[in-house]
Amino acid sequence: MIFILSLAIVLICAVSGRLLSKNIKQPMILGELILGMILGNIGIVRITEQISSLADIGIMLLLFSAGLGTNFGEFKKLETASTTVAFSGVVFPFIFGFLATYFFGFSIIVSLFVGTSLVATSIGVSASMLTEMKVLGTKIGTLIMGAAVIDDIIGVVVISIVISIATRGTVLLVEVAFLIVITLLFLMISLTVGIRFFKKVSEKVYIEKENLLLLGLIVALLFGVITEKIGLAAMIGAFIAGLILGQTDFAKRLQGHVSLIGGGFFIPVFFVTIGMYFDAHAFFSLGMFAVVLVIVAIIGKVLGCGLGAKISNFSWKESLVVGVAMIPRAGVELILIKLGLEYNIIDHNMASAILVMVIITTLITPSLFLKALKTTKTEENI
Amino acid sequence: MIFILSLAIVLICAVSGRLLSKNIKQPMILGELILGMILGNIGIVRITEQISSLADIGIMLLLFSAGLGTNFGEFKKLETASTTVAFSGVVFPFIFGFLATYFFGFSIIVSLFVGTSLVATSIGVSASMLTEMKVLGTKIGTLIMGAAVIDDIIGVVVISIVISIATRGTVLLVEVAFLIVITLLFLMISLTVGIRFFKKVSEKVYIEKENLLLLGLIVALLFGVITEKIGLAAMIGAFIAGLILGQTDFAKRLQGHVSLIGGGFFIPVFFVTIGMYFDAHAFFSLGMFAVVLVIVAIIGKVLGCGLGAKISNFSWKESLVVGVAMIPRAGVELILIKLGLEYNIIDHNMASAILVMVIITTLITPSLFLKALKTTKTEENI
Repeated sequence: MIFILSLAIVLICAVSGRLLSKNIKQPMILGELILGMILGNIGIVRITEQISSLADIGIMLLLFSAGLGTNFGEFKKLETASTTVAFSGVVFPFIFGFLATYFFGFSIIVSLFVGTSLVATSIGVSASMLTEMKVLGTKIGTLIMGAAVIDDIIGVVVISIVISIATRGTVLLVEVAFLIVITLLFLMISLTVGIRFFKKVSEKVYIEKENLLLLGLIVALLFGVITEKIGLAAMIGAFIAGLILGQTDFAKRLQGHVSLIGGGFFIPVFFVTIGMYFDAHAFFSLGMFAVVLVIVAIIGKVLGCGLGAKISNFSWKESLVVGVAMIPRAGVELILIKLGLEYNIIDHNMASAILVMVIITTLITPSLFLKALKTTKTEENI
Repeated sequence: MIFILSLAIVLICAVSGRLLSKNIKQPMILGELILGMILGNIGIVRITEQISSLADIGIMLLLFSAGLGTNFGEFKKLETASTTVAFSGVVFPFIFGFLATYFFGFSIIVSLFVGTSLVATSIGVSASMLTEMKVLGTKIGTLIMGAAVIDDIIGVVVISIVISIATRGTVLLVEVAFLIVITLLFLMISLTVGIRFFKKVSEKVYIEKENLLLLGLIVALLFGVITEKIGLAAMIGAFIAGLILGQTDFAKRLQGHVSLIGGGFFIPVFFVTIGMYFDAHAFFSLGMFAVVLVIVAIIGKVLGCGLGAKISNFSWKESLVVGVAMIPRAGVELILIKLGLEYNIIDHNMASAILVMVIITTLITPSLFLKALKTTKTEENI
């Protein structure tokens, strides 16, 4: 019963958050996050395993739906540009983060660790913004999604390197190479054999409504299991599953179903609980370092990804949109914090600083993105 | 990760079960239950708290959707008939169960307890069959839903009486009266003030898709919390919420959304996990008493509810349909087993016997119902 009541309260926060957002003309997630922050700090609802498993499904559905809505032809065409944006968006924040931390007197290992924590964009937040503002299927939207996926993969590779240095004092190159090879192999097979297989299935059988949704969810969950087994996040698998099924005759109907069950239940649970992780007490006690970390996190991505986009022949304004869209951090960073504490690389204060960076970058991006987008809205190719 | 994999396996069982059902021309739940039984006895997936919370949401969505699809005018018109069917469907199984148990040499208290375990129809199974066979909105469907709700309420009252006798040797009439009064009060207020309130809301605002679903879910969950607080099951609250919102302008769209998210995800999880509770070992070791209990459970409901329907001016064939539809037990009985073990009224063998009765009545009803329904399909008023 506590579960049902907690769930009801979380959903009420989601609806109130959406109303709030609408009133102040901001993206939905902003309100959901803020209401979540309030709920978390009042303390009447705890994030139980049951609630957080709903949130886990939520983030997977969000990415699954984003995959379904991605223009795959464009996605392939923009492969080089996405990779450029991702790499340059990894290098800048990493170096900035490393230097800033080292400058504050922390050890090289801790500085490497904090640098790593700035590497990966929260693909979930980006996907949600792109969907709400109807930019997902456009050229810029595709570039952002591609870059976000790639920098998540890079993030995982960097984490494995840094953890390896911190715990063993050296890097096992074989291990890192294996991770990269297996990831590329998985992507290649999924996006060729996978697409061909499901395309054939979709041409041969018509599956009605509920069973189509069931089937889609099974594919998304299984791909999530595979990517998690490899070492990537489950949501990356869900996104790949979406890309694949997006190429089939199921695509349009399935996307409608997934976005309903996602947006009408699971995804708001995800965003409200993300907000609930915000610890107001920690925030106000952290001081200067946290402020610097947040600034470095923002500038690093805007500069890195922006330059990456500019190099790839996007206009300055478009490059700004891309840079801003890549600001939020969340997914990989939360895993990183857990690992850092487990291996005694960072203490709880540093974990709080990183968490504050995650929350604030997530919080400010939707409004910034909306603004950046408006300045380019008059240009044609968006 | 184990959660995601387990969930994927449960959903695969659901799809396979539905395919199986389709091939042998039986209702969907039959296949879902059977695949669940197999899955449970192979033992590769355990029912964790996370999976069972999805199942809990599933049963609530099932009843919420049934409430939305119920013809409320007919529901009120058939109030007396439903009550008659419910009462007579409570008395027969109770007496049969009591006598059979006593005859097998058990004490009066245990016999009373077993009698009680036969009282309440599984409103979830009935609702699912009625929906699938498109009988939900008809006169018979409405009668069955009404009777199932009322006998669940009676079931809860009888349980509180029997538990009171077993633990204190006496009945606290005040307590029982309080339970009845508060239940009636809740029903009356919900179905008058509640309907008026939500009707007004639905006339004044248009709520789009995802937010409508969110709102509907919140109302269903909150009503579930209230009924559980009273002492009834949460699903009864969800049904009442469905009845209320079914009277508003939201009804049609909301029902589409709820049945998609329910049938395409949560409800199959519910039925597969119900099947997983079946313990093949216990079944084969229980012997004669379990067989008698199952027979008594079936005959008691068919006879009791059938006669109730006949008295209320339904034809013999229709009365048979009603009687058969009321056979399955599940909801209240599972709570009862837990209480019985907790208060040391029954031992684990008796608990297994009741559980076997629950599974078998649930398992055989869909096919029987389909058959009974076919014999009446030629008659007009169904």
